[in-house]
Amino acid sequence: MQNDILLRAALNKPTSRTPVWLMRQAGRILPEYRKVREAAGDFKTLVTTPELAAEVTIQPVDILGVDAAIIFSDILVIPEAMGLPYEMEERKGPVFPKVVSSQTDINSLRISQAEDLQYVLEAIKLTKQQLNGHVPLIGFAGAPWTIFSYMIEGGGSKTFSKAKKMLYTNPELAHQLLDKITQSTINYLKGQIAAGADLIQLFDSWAGILSPEQYQEFSLRYIQQICEAINEVPKTVFAKGAFFARAEMNALPCQVIGLDWNMDIEESKRMLPNKVLQGNLDPCALYGSLDDVRRETKKMIDAFGSHPHIANLGHGLYPDTEVDKVKCFIDTVKEYSALRSKN
Amino acid sequence: MQNDILLRAALNKPTSRTPVWLMRQAGRILPEYRKVREAAGDFKTLVTTPELAAEVTIQPVDILGVDAAIIFSDILVIPEAMGLPYEMEERKGPVFPKVVSSQTDINSLRISQAEDLQYVLEAIKLTKQQLNGHVPLIGFAGAPWTIFSYMIEGGGSKTFSKAKKMLYTNPELAHQLLDKITQSTINYLKGQIAAGADLIQLFDSWAGILSPEQYQEFSLRYIQQICEAINEVPKTVFAKGAFFARAEMNALPCQVIGLDWNMDIEESKRMLPNKVLQGNLDPCALYGSLDDVRRETKKMIDAFGSHPHIANLGHGLYPDTEVDKVKCFIDTVKEYSALRSKN
Repeated sequence: MQNDILLRAALNKPTSRTPVWLMRQAGRILPEYRKVREAAGDFKTLVTTPELAAEVTIQPVDILGVDAAIIFSDILVIPEAMGLPYEMEERKGPVFPKVVSSQTDINSLRISQAEDLQYVLEAIKLTKQQLNGHVPLIGFAGAPWTIFSYMIEGGGSKTFSKAKKMLYTNPELAHQLLDKITQSTINYLKGQIAAGADLIQLFDSWAGILSPEQYQEFSLRYIQQICEAINEVPKTVFAKGAFFARAEMNALPCQVIGLDWNMDIEESKRMLPNKVLQGNLDPCALYGSLDDVRRETKKMIDAFGSHPHIANLGHGLYPDTEVDKVKCFIDTVKEYSALRSKN
Repeated sequence: MQNDILLRAALNKPTSRTPVWLMRQAGRILPEYRKVREAAGDFKTLVTTPELAAEVTIQPVDILGVDAAIIFSDILVIPEAMGLPYEMEERKGPVFPKVVSSQTDINSLRISQAEDLQYVLEAIKLTKQQLNGHVPLIGFAGAPWTIFSYMIEGGGSKTFSKAKKMLYTNPELAHQLLDKITQSTINYLKGQIAAGADLIQLFDSWAGILSPEQYQEFSLRYIQQICEAINEVPKTVFAKGAFFARAEMNALPCQVIGLDWNMDIEESKRMLPNKVLQGNLDPCALYGSLDDVRRETKKMIDAFGSHPHIANLGHGLYPDTEVDKVKCFIDTVKEYSALRSKN
């Protein structure tokens, strides 16, 4: 591989500078993406058409100069493969016309196989061909608790009270569904790796709405199972809002832990001494001037210091971020961390 | 006062049991509230009519048996008094038809005086008369950062990127607005206390979207100013999601710190040794059976142990919570903590 700096950093091997990529780098902010998106007509066509998914996956590598591609897809392909289809509504986000609320609903869901998501595997193969060894490709999936929440709520929520209600009223049922999601996710990630993914990342977007105790029982144990099952490539776990679980995450069988911007860097270094850390600039920092972006990025690089680090934002890029600010973030990481390495 | 257990606990004086009240206890879940709400026609009529506000404020004291009343109002009365009116949309929440985005907008806002919110002061006076020394009355306001966010965003938001954008692009302007809100809030709280409020609470509902560093600069320093200006009654600060600021909060000139359900109790006791702690049962725990509610409530009481404690939820009551579960929470706190005190 021509640029394997991200893979080396994920394995805690020495690198000449800090590697950098951005969550949601494929899509949203690039005019080149919007053109493909418009031609496709809708989001799901883009996700399910391997040629188009590969095209938008590669765009940020060429245009922004990131050290990795991440396959363009959605975490909700898993519930769909299990038998619960989703729709993507413009400006509103994902919606499930049917939701899960009973034992019968759970019984009717299948444990999906990698082949059920052939279009993602095809997109990965195509992307790998087109990347031609330039940078590594990241595969991903949602963490079971986050997928579970979407399947129960039917979409986003302010309080996720339906999903949390099941944890209190029928924990057995919750565990049955979480188990089915976990098995499906393991099959899916193994398929992604067989198709060519060089690293994988688990996104636990709704980690932050659980109490520390519930997080252990209903989320972390399933993340643990997935991490134990996947040993072929380096693994990153990003649990947004799970500040309270950092000590336990230090013991997870994965290499990298993603931090959100609420998590203090010094404290996180102390709590996660065994892990490579990924993150964690506030996406809103990219709203500042180019000078602001440079200053905040350098501050972040300095704060991680000699701790093994992969630069990223503390959350996905926001849609109204300007491309030159994103480039400035990436360039500053590259230049400033190289300078620090030399000194 | 007949039942001054909450006031005593807030001042860290010995009590025979743990006092208990609930955020959002007035309104939402009580059929008696809904009746008054329907008769009033809309939310703002209820808030601005002292007789009705007093009536729904007192309801939970009689019906649920809580150890305090909290005045029925809204944190957004402050922007309205400053010159930025809000509307309350059914099922959607508060909306500001005009928002703040420029120096001109900020110049056009006034620092409000207590008298600008005469209807709240009247409601407090009426409530105090009708409570007739039964339990104390809590006054409240939003913390400046949370009020600021609403004034910039015009309502709720998933990312609060407009409000945060201003922090990065024009921190001076942000401080000007935060300062005006702070002065208005001090005037308002002093008015509430003069009208009869026995304790006050600051709600920083959107604390959790700031980085630790920004929280210091744009929120905590204004909370500090308010706490320094108010010395007549005990003060509680509840900053939802500000787990990262607990160490600093231990030094705030207030008596009580509210905890949300994400904040581990043991850890919070260690980080806040000088403070009475309030909270922090997950509101979703009240979705369980009566046995579940008893078990979770006892677990919470045991975890706070001998640390000075005011029992509450870790967030406002959710609208679909059953009244008998709320009563069960309150009764369990009373009975179980009395039993523990004896042993």
